[in-house]
Amino acid sequence: MTEYYKSHSRLYVGVDCIIFGIKDGRLSVLLTRRAFEPEKGKWSLFGGFCEADESLDAAAERVLRELTGLSNIYMNQVGAFGAVDRDPGERVVSVSYCALLNSDDLDPKLLREHGAVWTDLEALPELGFDHLLMIDKARENLRQRIMSTSVAFRLLPPFFTLTQLQSLFELVLGQTVDKRNFRKRALENAAIEATDMIDKTGSRRGARLYRFNWETFSRSSNFKF
Amino acid sequence: MTEYYKSHSRLYVGVDCIIFGIKDGRLSVLLTRRAFEPEKGKWSLFGGFCEADESLDAAAERVLRELTGLSNIYMNQVGAFGAVDRDPGERVVSVSYCALLNSDDLDPKLLREHGAVWTDLEALPELGFDHLLMIDKARENLRQRIMSTSVAFRLLPPFFTLTQLQSLFELVLGQTVDKRNFRKRALENAAIEATDMIDKTGSRRGARLYRFNWETFSRSSNFKF
Repeated sequence: MTEYYKSHSRLYVGVDCIIFGIKDGRLSVLLTRRAFEPEKGKWSLFGGFCEADESLDAAAERVLRELTGLSNIYMNQVGAFGAVDRDPGERVVSVSYCALLNSDDLDPKLLREHGAVWTDLEALPELGFDHLLMIDKARENLRQRIMSTSVAFRLLPPFFTLTQLQSLFELVLGQTVDKRNFRKRALENAAIEATDMIDKTGSRRGARLYRFNWETFSRSSNFKF
Repeated sequence: MTEYYKSHSRLYVGVDCIIFGIKDGRLSVLLTRRAFEPEKGKWSLFGGFCEADESLDAAAERVLRELTGLSNIYMNQVGAFGAVDRDPGERVVSVSYCALLNSDDLDPKLLREHGAVWTDLEALPELGFDHLLMIDKARENLRQRIMSTSVAFRLLPPFFTLTQLQSLFELVLGQTVDKRNFRKRALENAAIEATDMIDKTGSRRGARLYRFNWETFSRSSNFKF
């Protein structure tokens, strides 16, 4: 049976993590400037290799955990990238994963140690490999899923104002949203709950803080924002 | 620089093609019974290995071309499957692709030569590897995309009745569709054009044949069925 495999190539298999968060009110991604070849000096996503004894998912979780100190972060696979020359050093097929998180949850010290920099998606530097393609595809996935899934709430802090929520939708969709209509739909959504807390950082009058109820959401079979 | 890679594993990388078509009025997939190990005797998708000098996409196109004799078939990547034990013989990461085609376009002789059998998705036999997972994911992708993209029309013959079109939507969505409403929306859709031809196979009165205008579709920025 071994002969069946042996006539074929074995390739390096990489994993790359696209970590999206909201930083300073902008939809941002964690990048690092590569200190070694290949692509030394260019900016890149955080990645690693999938080893023989670990699954693709486990490899991606390991890369994310090493960088953030966190496990159990929401990730979904973006896809496999397999152009022959995508890595200038060796043939590497890479599978990219997209993580969505609240940027406040990350330890700034750990990010500094790894040279991780939050970078506005609207102002990306030159990226190594095919990492721009990966980010574009992940962003398109996010755009397609924001209206019908709970992904938006993974990017927000536990308590948020409706202005923050609207701004997030506008960032992801890349267009402005009608404020009245948006608030009406948010208030009609059973999973978005008003709290007693008021955020006074934005104005003297303040804005009510809301929370997303994951349990209510998990019981709704056909979630639609 | 080579040292950077050498400490990591190299894995076999497979490609598996999920070929969907409508056969005898049923949403079906092309399967083959494996004549050799691993998973000898089980049913499986058509697959192969990605070699060092070809891209993932090229490998999938090669597998599909060898089986069907056709190139330029619409395919989209379903995802990478990377469980450690997904192949009982060796560590193989597999990337699956979904092809949508009109089953009439395939040469029956070529299919017979490859042992390819159209199999109703509602009556799948036991499958080898993780091929059931792959089919389930591809089917879910199709379901999510059928209302907002042109994928449905890739599964139909060049001329089709509105009954055929409705039946396809019902098969993919897994639920019945209101006939009056469906026809109204189909007739309002600029890309769906009536022809002068009548199909008399179903009834004495016959049913008008329609065609999908890919050029009109390509000019519509926000297609919605």
